[in-house]
Amino acid sequence: MGETDPDSHPLGDAATAAFDAPAPEASHDEDDRLTPGFVDAVIERVEAGDVEGARALVDPLHPADIADLFELAPSTARRALAEAMADRLDGEVLAEMNDWVRDELIGELNANQVAELAGQLDTDDAVAIIADMEEDDQRAVLRALDPDDRAAIEEALSYPEESAGRLMQRELIAVPEHWTVGQIIQYLRDNPDLATDFWEIFVVDHAHHPIGTCKLSWVLRTPRDIAISDVMQREQTLIPVDMDQEEVALRFQKYALISAAVVDPAGRLVGVITVDDIVHIIQEEASEDILRMSGAGDGDINEPVVDSYKSRVRWLLANLLTALVASSVIALFEGTIARMVALATLMPIVAGVGGNAGTQTMAVAVRAIATNQLTQSNTLRTIVREIRVALLNGATVAAVIGVGVTIVFHNPTLGMVIAAAMMTNIFIAGLAGVLLPVTLDRFGADPAVASSVFVTMTTDSMGFLAFLGLATLSGLTG
Amino acid sequence: MGETDPDSHPLGDAATAAFDAPAPEASHDEDDRLTPGFVDAVIERVEAGDVEGARALVDPLHPADIADLFELAPSTARRALAEAMADRLDGEVLAEMNDWVRDELIGELNANQVAELAGQLDTDDAVAIIADMEEDDQRAVLRALDPDDRAAIEEALSYPEESAGRLMQRELIAVPEHWTVGQIIQYLRDNPDLATDFWEIFVVDHAHHPIGTCKLSWVLRTPRDIAISDVMQREQTLIPVDMDQEEVALRFQKYALISAAVVDPAGRLVGVITVDDIVHIIQEEASEDILRMSGAGDGDINEPVVDSYKSRVRWLLANLLTALVASSVIALFEGTIARMVALATLMPIVAGVGGNAGTQTMAVAVRAIATNQLTQSNTLRTIVREIRVALLNGATVAAVIGVGVTIVFHNPTLGMVIAAAMMTNIFIAGLAGVLLPVTLDRFGADPAVASSVFVTMTTDSMGFLAFLGLATLSGLTG
Repeated sequence: MGETDPDSHPLGDAATAAFDAPAPEASHDEDDRLTPGFVDAVIERVEAGDVEGARALVDPLHPADIADLFELAPSTARRALAEAMADRLDGEVLAEMNDWVRDELIGELNANQVAELAGQLDTDDAVAIIADMEEDDQRAVLRALDPDDRAAIEEALSYPEESAGRLMQRELIAVPEHWTVGQIIQYLRDNPDLATDFWEIFVVDHAHHPIGTCKLSWVLRTPRDIAISDVMQREQTLIPVDMDQEEVALRFQKYALISAAVVDPAGRLVGVITVDDIVHIIQEEASEDILRMSGAGDGDINEPVVDSYKSRVRWLLANLLTALVASSVIALFEGTIARMVALATLMPIVAGVGGNAGTQTMAVAVRAIATNQLTQSNTLRTIVREIRVALLNGATVAAVIGVGVTIVFHNPTLGMVIAAAMMTNIFIAGLAGVLLPVTLDRFGADPAVASSVFVTMTTDSMGFLAFLGLATLSGLTG
Repeated sequence: MGETDPDSHPLGDAATAAFDAPAPEASHDEDDRLTPGFVDAVIERVEAGDVEGARALVDPLHPADIADLFELAPSTARRALAEAMADRLDGEVLAEMNDWVRDELIGELNANQVAELAGQLDTDDAVAIIADMEEDDQRAVLRALDPDDRAAIEEALSYPEESAGRLMQRELIAVPEHWTVGQIIQYLRDNPDLATDFWEIFVVDHAHHPIGTCKLSWVLRTPRDIAISDVMQREQTLIPVDMDQEEVALRFQKYALISAAVVDPAGRLVGVITVDDIVHIIQEEASEDILRMSGAGDGDINEPVVDSYKSRVRWLLANLLTALVASSVIALFEGTIARMVALATLMPIVAGVGGNAGTQTMAVAVRAIATNQLTQSNTLRTIVREIRVALLNGATVAAVIGVGVTIVFHNPTLGMVIAAAMMTNIFIAGLAGVLLPVTLDRFGADPAVASSVFVTMTTDSMGFLAFLGLATLSGLTG
């Protein structure tokens, strides 16, 4: 699957030279993004029926840019664009395309067309496309695939979503340990069906257990008569086939891997994961943290409006509930507010700054957990650290607001009340900001999931309680 | 710099096998993090003066794990740990270590010791260590380096921070285009001083301009008498030496690169960037977005408390100012609140849910901009899209709160007022959440920098204005 004849090396798949002379209509801006002028020019020609003209513009583009072109085109123009570019809309372009845009396009193809596209791809990319389809469509595509590809894809689909089994390619180079470097080179030259792009050679025993790995640069630098077992690195990072992709990405990062062997539960070599797929995952997982902390779901600008609505409104309704908690705290003090309306003016300041302080701490904690920097060994130390930062922040902000309110309202008691409330709330914010994600993580939950809704509930409620409570106790309104 | 004798392949640098038998005290948990028990065991032995015992535990660890050990150890124990592990604390461990922890350790070494460590590293890692030092210390270390290493590091330091010039290694394999595959293999075997770990061979013309690139797997699969120019890929992504690292990372991601040539302004090949460094940058840049959106500065749990305080308190004070804007909006309506204190109870709900809606939209926009998905071509479309999502969200939340307030307060007018205010505020939140980052980006500013402070100011102020304003106009308070 996805093999190129080794005699005609895949020059056509080349990345576009960044310094290449631009087309008459400059296709890329200085950040390597397609220019609006270029996108418009392509769409205009397609819509005017000038398919030749549109293809002349698109032909020099890299598959990743063609994928971008579809994403940047208005969704109403995508179908006509796809028809005009039918021969360039290959598996590689689809693999680079945003999931939502791709699913929209694939939805318009029949099973045979999808099967043909999937057949051009490495297993991991083919699986990504097929996994998103409805079950019926999926079965139809699988039936239309040739038997080898079907078996590979069906096996990959049997692994859980976002696991190493879904990410891996099955195309890899594995050799027995008694082979010499010369034998390996001969084997590679004699077998045109082998993978063309690979970065390491895996050495396996008779039961197909990986026992070593050898970077190609070492193979190239070693005389032909040396046995691979004398050159290979025996210690290697093995990825269990059911490992979560986030964990896989952390391993790649920690050990600076370019590729890694994937093994089944019996320890047999079943595939390889390469770092170019990991790069996407790190980007995705980090984005997920931002979006989840904000309660924005998948948060993709290509997602249908209704899907975005559904994922976001859930959290807004949850937020409505948590806001009711804060609101009911205020209700306890209606009498106090009635006697001194200025309190209603000042109370959102205490709540708001506390919320910001909580979000700061939470962002730090969520990222430290996600990158394996915050572990059980340093949890207590990190909590103490965040408390110290919170105390310094609280003292500073409390002093500023306390003095300010004293001067503006000519009321030192009010100044002291708001300063004490601010100090308390920033302290609680720091505590909640680190404890909430740490606790969620300890119980196996995602520390990022809408933590901000709960931290804000805490800082709002405690801000109002501290401020209005202290105002009442101080006899300010008395 | 950093070369290993090619006859003794660098087996010692191997990644630890994930399935290796654990030490008596299990060193790693199931997520490949050092266990608290293991960290404590090492520290206890070091503190008890049992250097042998501590080293027996640490010896099997990968350099990345030794770096983690230092990060997880309490900072008071790090010095003694460093002394006990002096011979394992090499350049590779330092390259993997958190910046703050590393700087703390390096601060205790003299210039010759630092120079010796830096001499073991690739240029990019050596530069990362030296760049963070005070200018005087930096000069002393540079003087202590051998002349070749010094020249390489001084040149790297001449490039701007976070640029391709800082990231690149100068060790690479470049060959003339008329060479055959056989000549290249011979050249690699005959020259033990060449780089050991590389993934591509660069082909250059007489002026050292890159004209093509060849993956090692292609070299291996091509007969010896074929010229490299017949096999190489002519189109390649060239990275200008002054390109920002975030941009470099996006290129690697877009074109699925493993390594890429770096060229000076005259187009000459000066270095190579490999994907393992890019993986760290993607992680860093994504973390930066989360932390900046939250106003948490660098947000590293190893940062000294005072530094964290300084970077966070700035934004809390900025937030204090923006909260005053919201507060002054409320002050305009003190008369209204005095007549109906329930308004003070309800107003934070309108502001809070609006703030959450704004943060959701902003998180989506910031990530779409950072990953080059939101460009000039689809800005207008994305704004329209976010408005549609906001209208749906607004209508839903407004209906729920409107009905709820009508029932609880037996006051349909109050229900209609809060529903209309909520609708308005969620609409404004959506607009501000997408317009603010897009505008910051258009003017060349970082769309993530504390956008949340400004979005929250907008949603707080407009929430209070809409709710209290409508309440006043509706005649609710007589």
